[in-house]
Amino acid sequence: MQIGKKIWAIPEGYIPAWSNGPSPEMTSHEAACILNTNSQDAHVTLTIYFADREPAGPYQILVPALRTKHIRFNDLDEPEKIPPGLSYSSVFMADVPVVIQHTRLDSRQSENALLSTIAYSE
Amino acid sequence: MQIGKKIWAIPEGYIPAWSNGPSPEMTSHEAACILNTNSQDAHVTLTIYFADREPAGPYQILVPALRTKHIRFNDLDEPEKIPPGLSYSSVFMADVPVVIQHTRLDSRQSENALLSTIAYSE
Amino acid sequence: MQIGKKIWAIPEGYIPAWSNGPSPEMTSHEAACILNTNSQDAHVTLTIYFADREPAGPYQILVPALRTKHIRFNDLDEPEKIPPGLSYSSVFMADVPVVIQHTRLDSRQSENALLSTIAYSE
Amino acid sequence: MQIGKKIWAIPEGYIPAWSNGPSPEMTSHEAACILNTNSQDAHVTLTIYFADREPAGPYQILVPALRTKHIRFNDLDEPEKIPPGLSYSSVFMADVPVVIQHTRLDSRQSENALLSTIAYSE
Repeated sequence: MQIGKKIWAIPEGYIPAWSNGPSPEMTSHEAACILNTNSQDAHVTLTIYFADREPAGPYQILVPALRTKHIRFNDLDEPEKIPPGLSYSSVFMADVPVVIQHTRLDSRQSENALLSTIAYSE
Repeated sequence: MQIGKKIWAIPEGYIPAWSNGPSPEMTSHEAACILNTNSQDAHVTLTIYFADREPAGPYQILVPALRTKHIRFNDLDEPEKIPPGLSYSSVFMADVPVVIQHTRLDSRQSENALLSTIAYSE
Repeated sequence: MQIGKKIWAIPEGYIPAWSNGPSPEMTSHEAACILNTNSQDAHVTLTIYFADREPAGPYQILVPALRTKHIRFNDLDEPEKIPPGLSYSSVFMADVPVVIQHTRLDSRQSENALLSTIAYSE
Repeated sequence: MQIGKKIWAIPEGYIPAWSNGPSPEMTSHEAACILNTNSQDAHVTLTIYFADREPAGPYQILVPALRTKHIRFNDLDEPEKIPPGLSYSSVFMADVPVVIQHTRLDSRQSENALLSTIAYSE
């Protein structure tokens, strides 16, 4: 069963700049949930776009067959950390169809989503 | 009147692990609203995907003709309860077109939705 | 300029049952924003679906040419009020293309949206 | 790489009427994130629709090649400020494909999004 698309985009994104800043600096972070319903692994390439600098990436993400994966943007570090304190957008390109949802999580209790939207696909 | 699609996906999902844990462990749970505008019943099959184990299901959901149904994921128990404390994704397949919206509810007062997005369809 | 679709659906909806109940009973209500970019008026017919009773409606909504309109579901009263305390879904059918967004508002200060999603269209 | 659409709409919008009003009058404002993955600049024309007056605009927005831009509606002032205290809808038309997400931000700490949805595209 193949569900989804190979190209996804999330315009909104932000990683707080200070690790000891005031609330809500410490209370949220961005995540993307990737669902792979295929019987083969999905290889996803992520590129990050900014307002005032060159794009970052590509980041490589593996989502195993018949599995889901939660990506937290502030955990990405290869080829570089996403610079904190900057707004960014993300584009995902997969080799098989996947489905992606954008969620902002409460970083103190990761199960507490603050907002969510299905990403843009084509 | 037929409105909707037969295949829907919601990548984001989480059922808290502890029944007496601190807030917000007890303050939210996932729901899916399914609208059936057809003049015949909709038979919906739900499959749940995880990060680290085999998918669960299929779960069988009946949405009568010209009716809407709210599914709470932590109420599902046949063929098994969805394991708490794990992130999951859900895929719905219906025999007639339906429309599905993903909502996180405040479990103390079920009318209080915390976030919401139309699910992905194709 | 014609933007949008003629058929829209919002599976999620709820009007609190008690007018003097505890928070958040009094703190939110459902709204739909309808955008009409056409040079002619849009005549929109709304039908409400429930879990356990026959659909309500049709409700008639006029959105003037080049205008936007916010519909609050608890303000609808012709042909009948939407019964409070019940979950419902809504289907909009327009004679020209429109765009519809679902929003839950804080009823004490209507400018304060609590959640929002573009409705399902086809 | 071209991702997105040239026409986008966001039915929901509101700019608070009072600059010293009670919370949440001062706690949120509307934003749109525009992602341009093209190797050329995107020229975006924004038109604002109201319930009871003629549309405002066009507003001109430049999103450089391979960049993202956050637009705050209350910062727009050419050809006119968006009147506060009125609900409005927005339509974006770009000369190259872009992706747009609607977000309501906490105005005290702009990194704190309160709600979000991918805009309607066609």
